Amino acid sequence: MGSCSSQSCQSCFFEYETERMIVVKSKVVGSVFRLIQFLILVYVIGYVCVVQKSYQETDSVISSVTTKVKGTGFTNTSDLGARVWDVADYNIPPQGDSSFFVLTNMIVTPNQTQSTCPELPNQSTICMSDSDCLEGSNDVRGNGIQTGLCMNYKETVKTCEVLSWCPLEIDINLPEHALLAAAEDFTVLIKNSVTYPKFNFHKRNILPDVNSSYLKQCEFNRKTDPYCPIFRLKDMVSEAEEDFQTMAIRGGVLGIMIDWSCDLDWPEHHCGPKYSFRRLDNKIPENNVAPGYNFRFAKYYKTTDGRETRTLIKAYGILFDVIVFGTVNAVCNWFLLTCTKRRDYYSKHKFTYLDNTDDNAGESVSY
Amino acid sequence: MGSCSSQSCQSCFFEYETERMIVVKSKVVGSVFRLIQFLILVYVIGYVCVVQKSYQETDSVISSVTTKVKGTGFTNTSDLGARVWDVADYNIPPQGDSSFFVLTNMIVTPNQTQSTCPELPNQSTICMSDSDCLEGSNDVRGNGIQTGLCMNYKETVKTCEVLSWCPLEIDINLPEHALLAAAEDFTVLIKNSVTYPKFNFHKRNILPDVNSSYLKQCEFNRKTDPYCPIFRLKDMVSEAEEDFQTMAIRGGVLGIMIDWSCDLDWPEHHCGPKYSFRRLDNKIPENNVAPGYNFRFAKYYKTTDGRETRTLIKAYGILFDVIVFGTVNAVCNWFLLTCTKRRDYYSKHKFTYLDNTDDNAGESVSY
Amino acid sequence: MGSCSSQSCQSCFFEYETERMIVVKSKVVGSVFRLIQFLILVYVIGYVCVVQKSYQETDSVISSVTTKVKGTGFTNTSDLGARVWDVADYNIPPQGDSSFFVLTNMIVTPNQTQSTCPELPNQSTICMSDSDCLEGSNDVRGNGIQTGLCMNYKETVKTCEVLSWCPLEIDINLPEHALLAAAEDFTVLIKNSVTYPKFNFHKRNILPDVNSSYLKQCEFNRKTDPYCPIFRLKDMVSEAEEDFQTMAIRGGVLGIMIDWSCDLDWPEHHCGPKYSFRRLDNKIPENNVAPGYNFRFAKYYKTTDGRETRTLIKAYGILFDVIVFGTVNAVCNWFLLTCTKRRDYYSKHKFTYLDNTDDNAGESVSY
Repeated sequence: MGSCSSQSCQSCFFEYETERMIVVKSKVVGSVFRLIQFLILVYVIGYVCVVQKSYQETDSVISSVTTKVKGTGFTNTSDLGARVWDVADYNIPPQGDSSFFVLTNMIVTPNQTQSTCPELPNQSTICMSDSDCLEGSNDVRGNGIQTGLCMNYKETVKTCEVLSWCPLEIDINLPEHALLAAAEDFTVLIKNSVTYPKFNFHKRNILPDVNSSYLKQCEFNRKTDPYCPIFRLKDMVSEAEEDFQTMAIRGGVLGIMIDWSCDLDWPEHHCGPKYSFRRLDNKIPENNVAPGYNFRFAKYYKTTDGRETRTLIKAYGILFDVIVFGTVNAVCNWFLLTCTKRRDYYSKHKFTYLDNTDDNAGESVSY
Repeated sequence: MGSCSSQSCQSCFFEYETERMIVVKSKVVGSVFRLIQFLILVYVIGYVCVVQKSYQETDSVISSVTTKVKGTGFTNTSDLGARVWDVADYNIPPQGDSSFFVLTNMIVTPNQTQSTCPELPNQSTICMSDSDCLEGSNDVRGNGIQTGLCMNYKETVKTCEVLSWCPLEIDINLPEHALLAAAEDFTVLIKNSVTYPKFNFHKRNILPDVNSSYLKQCEFNRKTDPYCPIFRLKDMVSEAEEDFQTMAIRGGVLGIMIDWSCDLDWPEHHCGPKYSFRRLDNKIPENNVAPGYNFRFAKYYKTTDGRETRTLIKAYGILFDVIVFGTVNAVCNWFLLTCTKRRDYYSKHKFTYLDNTDDNAGESVSY
Repeated sequence: MGSCSSQSCQSCFFEYETERMIVVKSKVVGSVFRLIQFLILVYVIGYVCVVQKSYQETDSVISSVTTKVKGTGFTNTSDLGARVWDVADYNIPPQGDSSFFVLTNMIVTPNQTQSTCPELPNQSTICMSDSDCLEGSNDVRGNGIQTGLCMNYKETVKTCEVLSWCPLEIDINLPEHALLAAAEDFTVLIKNSVTYPKFNFHKRNILPDVNSSYLKQCEFNRKTDPYCPIFRLKDMVSEAEEDFQTMAIRGGVLGIMIDWSCDLDWPEHHCGPKYSFRRLDNKIPENNVAPGYNFRFAKYYKTTDGRETRTLIKAYGILFDVIVFGTVNAVCNWFLLTCTKRRDYYSKHKFTYLDNTDDNAGESVSY
């Protein structure tokens, strides 16, 4: 630019700067050069285009999942008597969205009313006399509000009395075999629609080439029925390398992963759901406060005299989480062009001709 | 490097290698050169900066959604008699989070108790005598545990008896017109707060310039009230190009998409929610096991003698899913710099001056 | 290419084009050149490798969250009498997934039945005579279906009668102090397992080095117990810079953010959950239709004569949303290689040797 200042601005404006190129005419040098060019071409086509697919545009999935569990179980306990469980009983909440829970084990405390009863015995609730109990005290780990009295819990044990839903739940006697063991044979129909908005691509996990009669009796099997959307609970737990009956005792969380990653350059029928299963909660027993998965809920009733009673259920079971993911690739003109351009970038050069021996002047400038 | 080895290392260290440049003085060549430079400049400013906004930094949205449905409906059926439905009745679950369900049609089976009754007739349940029924058998597609007896279902049809919640639900008589047809006039208030943490940007879908009296009577309309956060259910379904009453019969899933993509370089009031609606489940009738959206739930009661009864409801309705997405762009100094740098990269050159005619030689070619 | 066409194709194939390079032997120029090379090296190693960590590969988190609230509260109202609330009463829904609600305030309307009663008085419901009321009319903002009668609401006010769940809820008398004020001392155990599938990395928020006895009595405290997974509700609200008792009156939404961003190049025990808390809904009172967070639900009962009654509860409370995020970085050979390659790219040049004095051609070197 310095040299430009010594000239008229106009002449400067029309100057063109370029690199000087030379052309070497030598079989050895030329061969090496062409080999390098060839390797670049292989890299561009092989790696950039085929492996990395950088010429493809990607999009993330928008998904809708609904689920429906089928099956009935039978329990016979002293609390509830002989009882059949259907989906409205064991599927909580009932909505059937992407997360559903199947009750497998439980501690039932029927006929609770708002009244007073002695606390469950532990270090801080055992008392000798009323003076050990503080009226109105409300321990966050306790079951109610202390009344200030010390009552017989058992013949030999006295505990502070509380105002609470009595009788209190005794949750140490969890059945060692899951009550609703039959749940392993329950099935769930998973309906999943996915959309890749950028490519206006819609697909369901119920593929177009399956018919209704097949869907009425099929069951997912990785080998024989990989596209059947009906899953036996036990099969899913087995695929996650867990034992259903063991998991059913204390409950757990199982992830149902549906992978919709597709390459839209291939015909559409190559794009199908790929299912996998994995236990999501921690099953290692050590350091495990409240292992497994459980929650408490209650059914409320009113007696004829208008008092409220409830049945408290500590529900153990398996929470199934349907997790849909995937990205889709497709050729896009713009990216295809980019790819072509890059190849050009590597293979095209400005050049002049110059013999290896001919090192005088007379270069022709190409542009 | 080879030639370097023949010299002292120090002298080698202070060598500087550069490309040789030539300057072509020609109006034609210069004009073409300047034109190319101009096009590059246009590309950098126009495409990279204005269209692609590569100088901007982006952030993804963190969102909180709560919803509240309003409206009452009236049904008059033989099972339930004349009955008014309010939000606590038809909105299940009631929590009002980003996904809410509005009941539009139903099959009600009242006064079920744990007892025995003949199965619904189908290929596997029709029997001639008790020997056709297996005591304790529990078909996953059946309704209970077989007792081993063969009973009259109708005068002409005998089926195996099951222990179950009886009477069994007969779900083939779905009302052809949605019972809660009035649901189309229900409204929902959607409250959505978004945060772009990187830019400390917070905004609600209830914009600061709307007042309470407007919010008490407004209704979303793409043309007249695009920022009213209260939506009539029928309008949303229409926007998704569906017919509410048709969809109400068998239910379905409707996505309410809220797009918060903004360019924070513009004044804040340019950044508002953009609503769109889309049916998420599949409505194509063929190959459609359990088309639409429904689930079963039960209300449990206790009779005066302590026996549990329940009302089973197979609920058909529309599940609304509020999906919030968006990225926000904003100028970032670093990126602005990058952009400037890139322009320099294209317009600045090292160069030497060389007349088009001045073609002396004598350079040594290295390779 | 043009000059190539005048020669045989084979000879053309073995030509090699390259830029002409010159080597400037000058201590000043060389020093500047080496300085620039040094800066590039510093940039590559310091910025690209150390700051940006571009040699690392990243992965996003897959997470599973379950929660369990503990604590009992006591209320004494005219509607309900003295009453103890446990988790099955105030935690709605009870499932304990990543979003849980704790009831803190409420308006209870007991003993509603399907019957007729005068509407709540407002501009459109106040009437003088039956002719002001339209039988069958169903206002979306009303509470039921008008019967066409004009009835005494109070001695001085007449309103149109509606068929509805009567008596109607009067929701203007929200208690000014949260009924379940004791909720501030409730605790919640959050169990969170994360997986980074690409690196086969699993971890829980209950770290391996904490024991059961610690977990039985600990409470999260940013300074003393940063890894205790048990949180007092009041502490979380305080961390979000809100007052629990104020928030408890009208409810709200609180985000519990768990950040699992980790650098797997460091030993595993450096990778732990980082908790933060933030109010997600809008608390600004102006322009706030239905401020806070509330929803209505009902408990259904049957009277001895088979009529359905319900207790309607307008529940105000805090919705806690556990949001898990994070990316993990780790050294990856391929990226490490990429980084090395880039350094080479900057430091390696083709060059020729040319003394500063050896100015045959007479070009001026610009720098």
